[in-house]
Amino acid sequence: MMRQSLYSAVVCDALDGLGFTNQSPRTQLLSLTVDEVLVGRCRTTSWEEIDFEDPAPYELELQAVDSCEPDDVLICAAGGSMRSGIWGELLSTAAKNRGCVGAIVDGAVRDISKMTAMGFPVFATARCIYDSLNRQRVIAVDEPVEIDGVIFRSGDLVLADQDGIVVVPQEIEEQAMRNAWQKVHDENITRDAIIDGMLATAAYRKYGVL
Amino acid sequence: MMRQSLYSAVVCDALDGLGFTNQSPRTQLLSLTVDEVLVGRCRTTSWEEIDFEDPAPYELELQAVDSCEPDDVLICAAGGSMRSGIWGELLSTAAKNRGCVGAIVDGAVRDISKMTAMGFPVFATARCIYDSLNRQRVIAVDEPVEIDGVIFRSGDLVLADQDGIVVVPQEIEEQAMRNAWQKVHDENITRDAIIDGMLATAAYRKYGVL
Amino acid sequence: MMRQSLYSAVVCDALDGLGFTNQSPRTQLLSLTVDEVLVGRCRTTSWEEIDFEDPAPYELELQAVDSCEPDDVLICAAGGSMRSGIWGELLSTAAKNRGCVGAIVDGAVRDISKMTAMGFPVFATARCIYDSLNRQRVIAVDEPVEIDGVIFRSGDLVLADQDGIVVVPQEIEEQAMRNAWQKVHDENITRDAIIDGMLATAAYRKYGVL
Repeated sequence: MMRQSLYSAVVCDALDGLGFTNQSPRTQLLSLTVDEVLVGRCRTTSWEEIDFEDPAPYELELQAVDSCEPDDVLICAAGGSMRSGIWGELLSTAAKNRGCVGAIVDGAVRDISKMTAMGFPVFATARCIYDSLNRQRVIAVDEPVEIDGVIFRSGDLVLADQDGIVVVPQEIEEQAMRNAWQKVHDENITRDAIIDGMLATAAYRKYGVL
Repeated sequence: MMRQSLYSAVVCDALDGLGFTNQSPRTQLLSLTVDEVLVGRCRTTSWEEIDFEDPAPYELELQAVDSCEPDDVLICAAGGSMRSGIWGELLSTAAKNRGCVGAIVDGAVRDISKMTAMGFPVFATARCIYDSLNRQRVIAVDEPVEIDGVIFRSGDLVLADQDGIVVVPQEIEEQAMRNAWQKVHDENITRDAIIDGMLATAAYRKYGVL
Repeated sequence: MMRQSLYSAVVCDALDGLGFTNQSPRTQLLSLTVDEVLVGRCRTTSWEEIDFEDPAPYELELQAVDSCEPDDVLICAAGGSMRSGIWGELLSTAAKNRGCVGAIVDGAVRDISKMTAMGFPVFATARCIYDSLNRQRVIAVDEPVEIDGVIFRSGDLVLADQDGIVVVPQEIEEQAMRNAWQKVHDENITRDAIIDGMLATAAYRKYGVL
């Protein structure tokens, strides 16, 4: 139900109303695969750039993927690095097997056409065909990470769609979602009034949303 | 007819030929909703960034939308700001009711999937889910605005498509459109000759267009 | 067969394995027209920016296009310039007539919707509606060119798809393609094992690819 009726912008507005005004990275983290609303709980990974032969390649990222639980969203914080494509088809396949519903990557990914065919939502800043082997690797799992000044914590609710990404801190989640539902309702009334011919100025004065 | 046969590049070429060589912003203002040629007359708005509780939120933008006339194209000059999504579904709905045919935003927008469902053309530099409330607002309507060094004036003819955006100054409009029609014709002849096997060098020598 | 089974990422991995670790530009050279794997041999052109009335407009680019041979891929090295759209529909039509299978442009192009309708693959950094006339021109054909630190030579094999672009130096081509085929095979086995429920960690330990 949440996936059908909610979207990132209205949740962001609800967070604004509660004084949480920095919950969405402004960097363009667009869906490179399927066009749907991704909703789930953050599973965070931090990445570093390397430039040597890694003695234990893929170790922590494989652990993160293999320990995914249903409705997890993999958050890959790589500081927007273009050094390699750190997320791809085989990781998506393994994560999806465990119930993971999507990935959000502040960095580059590859295997776009295969992940699109899988129907797996992947939001990223860029594409890069280089393997991450000996170029980038995970250095921490389940630690809080930052993307463009916004903090993502494992367990936080996250929504992502064509407009952008919003993360809901756990301490405010229940109130934020209740307010978001209310705003969806108010927007529906406003939209109907405008479609019926009410001027926008009058609709805003009457219903108070835009 | 103009919508079916003209496109931004050929109008830009006609303007080049008349010595108007700076009529298209080079920033990537792509259509984020539907893929068609947008043609209409500029209705300009200037935006500023704010960081306080706005005593009269949305005031001028609502006025601009509510006073739109048929074939208007809302031009939102926000200096490419990523601070918030300044254009969205409800503004599109209200503007469309008044006959507005699309929006061009030098800045960020939101509600992409809803505006796509409406079939409303929106060209913008980025997406952002933050509400404009207390973040950005309109400070002038119908004043000349600048986007990437190009001046847009209310009443100017504007065309926008997948290649880019071109604005036609009123003093040269009639001549520019006549020359653009002629160039469409010349390109059609050249294309047919090339498809029939003529080398590009020979076609250019014979017809003078490329 | 190569077009159906190979893709840029796996060829890049094969090149990595042979010590050729800088064969893909990290700039986002995306397909702006059709979504397929482009495979062919480089035909290089170098471009310069100009700002005067060109006495011999389009001369070298027309020569390059008219001398294309089957399976050529036009490489347009323009240093990422946004000054004009240097590749468009008529050049695509003429090049395609000669057997050219696509274009890769480190710079801007125009006529996107027409080239899409033609089904002609064009990878570029940006879109721009300005004509190249008196703004940019070809200064060399068949000389080695550089895009984002990667060297493209006429005759080199090149692959491009949604993930990115990879160029295969001729001295290593046979070995690289053999290794790429092998990796496609290994990835297929790994994918099947993961789909059947094997954890990613175990699959990587067993098959050695990811």
